[in-house]
Amino acid sequence: MLLLIPGPVTTRPEVRAAANVDIAPWDFDFRPVYAGVQDRLLSIANGVPGVHAAVPLPGCGHFINEAAIRTFVPPGGRILIPATGGYGQRLTRLAREAGREPVELPVSETERIPPDAIAAALDRDPSIGHVGLVQSETSSGEVHDAEAIGDVVRARGRRMIVDAVSAFGAMPLDLSAHPEIDAIVFTPNKCLEALPGIAYAIARIDRLRATSGNAGSWSLDLSDVYANLVTRGDGRPRFTPPVQIIAALSRALDFFEAEGRIARLARYTANMRTFYDGMVGLGLTPFVSPEDQGPIIVNIRAPNDPAWNLQRFVDALKARGVLISNFYNTPTPGFRVGCIGAIGPDDMAGSVAAIDKALNDIGVKIRNGASK
Amino acid sequence: MLLLIPGPVTTRPEVRAAANVDIAPWDFDFRPVYAGVQDRLLSIANGVPGVHAAVPLPGCGHFINEAAIRTFVPPGGRILIPATGGYGQRLTRLAREAGREPVELPVSETERIPPDAIAAALDRDPSIGHVGLVQSETSSGEVHDAEAIGDVVRARGRRMIVDAVSAFGAMPLDLSAHPEIDAIVFTPNKCLEALPGIAYAIARIDRLRATSGNAGSWSLDLSDVYANLVTRGDGRPRFTPPVQIIAALSRALDFFEAEGRIARLARYTANMRTFYDGMVGLGLTPFVSPEDQGPIIVNIRAPNDPAWNLQRFVDALKARGVLISNFYNTPTPGFRVGCIGAIGPDDMAGSVAAIDKALNDIGVKIRNGASK
Repeated sequence: MLLLIPGPVTTRPEVRAAANVDIAPWDFDFRPVYAGVQDRLLSIANGVPGVHAAVPLPGCGHFINEAAIRTFVPPGGRILIPATGGYGQRLTRLAREAGREPVELPVSETERIPPDAIAAALDRDPSIGHVGLVQSETSSGEVHDAEAIGDVVRARGRRMIVDAVSAFGAMPLDLSAHPEIDAIVFTPNKCLEALPGIAYAIARIDRLRATSGNAGSWSLDLSDVYANLVTRGDGRPRFTPPVQIIAALSRALDFFEAEGRIARLARYTANMRTFYDGMVGLGLTPFVSPEDQGPIIVNIRAPNDPAWNLQRFVDALKARGVLISNFYNTPTPGFRVGCIGAIGPDDMAGSVAAIDKALNDIGVKIRNGASK
Repeated sequence: MLLLIPGPVTTRPEVRAAANVDIAPWDFDFRPVYAGVQDRLLSIANGVPGVHAAVPLPGCGHFINEAAIRTFVPPGGRILIPATGGYGQRLTRLAREAGREPVELPVSETERIPPDAIAAALDRDPSIGHVGLVQSETSSGEVHDAEAIGDVVRARGRRMIVDAVSAFGAMPLDLSAHPEIDAIVFTPNKCLEALPGIAYAIARIDRLRATSGNAGSWSLDLSDVYANLVTRGDGRPRFTPPVQIIAALSRALDFFEAEGRIARLARYTANMRTFYDGMVGLGLTPFVSPEDQGPIIVNIRAPNDPAWNLQRFVDALKARGVLISNFYNTPTPGFRVGCIGAIGPDDMAGSVAAIDKALNDIGVKIRNGASK
């Protein structure tokens, strides 16, 4: 079965095998793994040792996003959130329920955010202290230019939090050149090709130190996680971490480092291009235009055929060995496919052929999708 | 290597093998596993379908404890927390940082809490709405009588949250007879002999419905997790769960159900008795008296010998194939050993022999511990 969802992704057998062991979290044999993963993640982000730190948090992408917002945005603080799609909405709700004031910025879901739009919003409202940006909007497949947006944020003396959940390990973001970024956050079950259950923030140490007491939640307080890493200094996790999941991540980073981020991004881009062009070749309509399409997720509009039924399509495709999401979170119906994981262009070519057959299986003849 | 920490515990190879697969969280092949685990956990607690629900939360024991406090104790609400030890302190800090008012009740760390002490504290202070009880205090090894305490809480019209992290699956707690309990919370990497990374609350549905908006945290809002389970009704998790960890839990529950809770408790009790008596036989001094000693964790006082050094002892014991915690959270120094996991009395007898040798290895001759 080829898993083509935007994560959890297809992993290598070696990565899953690394989880098949009992581990004491504080054991001296595990501490180098635990700390080593943090160092290696810091390096992927081009974080600066002594300036940035990788901070682990058990759980999922929602948790690490909420933790970053609670830690870096003070209670009642205002954070500008571009409405990029489902995951931009997530940041808005997370911030509001945490007692912060999200300010939504309307943007196109199918185009890159113009940095000028961020600049204008910040200039209009000096009370906004932060920008919260979804780098790769999983709902649409759009990837935004976090570095260009960071530049306008920095020029205005504001701060930034980047939700890099489905981008980290593939899309570039050089933390050393972006002091305006308090934290980028992610989970390793996307472009790092590991398993779900742990999340990380790579954050500025000065900000982690300055924000003690902000979070209003011991569990979700990244300042406390960091203080614990440093003041105990003994490599013992704050709470019981998902040790098997971290052991698998450590193994996945071996493969990441052997491949390199640029080659991995090239592989995902080739995956996306094979799939995107294949879909167009089948007469289907992608949600995002070729020039705006990111390499992580491709969304395809629902065919304009009364026989179209997403679950029936997913079932037919699964019977042909390809598993995709059976839901969408674009504004209009469609299906979404992840181009990430331990897969290559041949897998994507095979999935195009399987989609052709699955559409026939369920009797879809008209394949073009609703126009914008 | 025999893992004798209070969790994560030694697991069966079959349990770990069940995690060795890629899984799409919303896939129809996984939904019965995801929902089935919840039904089976409900049954272990003797929860009543339609009255109680098992509610999953990615993460560790801290997270599910904070989630329960945030969800069931309103902001500013007062919660009585017996100071049972390190994990009682944890509840107090969690509650305070979440903006609730913990009221600490001083109790002995080495004796069961007299229910009368809870009754008196509640009678003295009618503004206390909840009691937060650690059922099995991992720091000392003391196990408290949650049912007897629940009775006095119920008689006074108050509510209760039970931290059953290191008790659930072994110690009895019949939810059907305890309507005063809003939730019991636990992780499956203790007495359920599964892997860390997911936590559960078994909670009253009427209370989950009544507490919408309390939590002040989308991530840690059990009312929202429940609403999502019900209103979507499609078995799709709220956020990405640690799917491999849940698959392993499902397999671990097969073994739990084959053994039964009573037999499992008897096995752990035999483990504890073998170990406890073995320690006394070696001249060591347990922290808790035999009549108060719980079956989950045994704490041993540091020997009164200048050669004693916990890390050296742990290292020497590890070289002999037994891994125990290299820290303690009792008020006085010592070492702690878990009696839980996929292990039996023979393993404990072997660990007694190994401890005898390890003490000799590091030159400890005087073995009795500091008196109370």
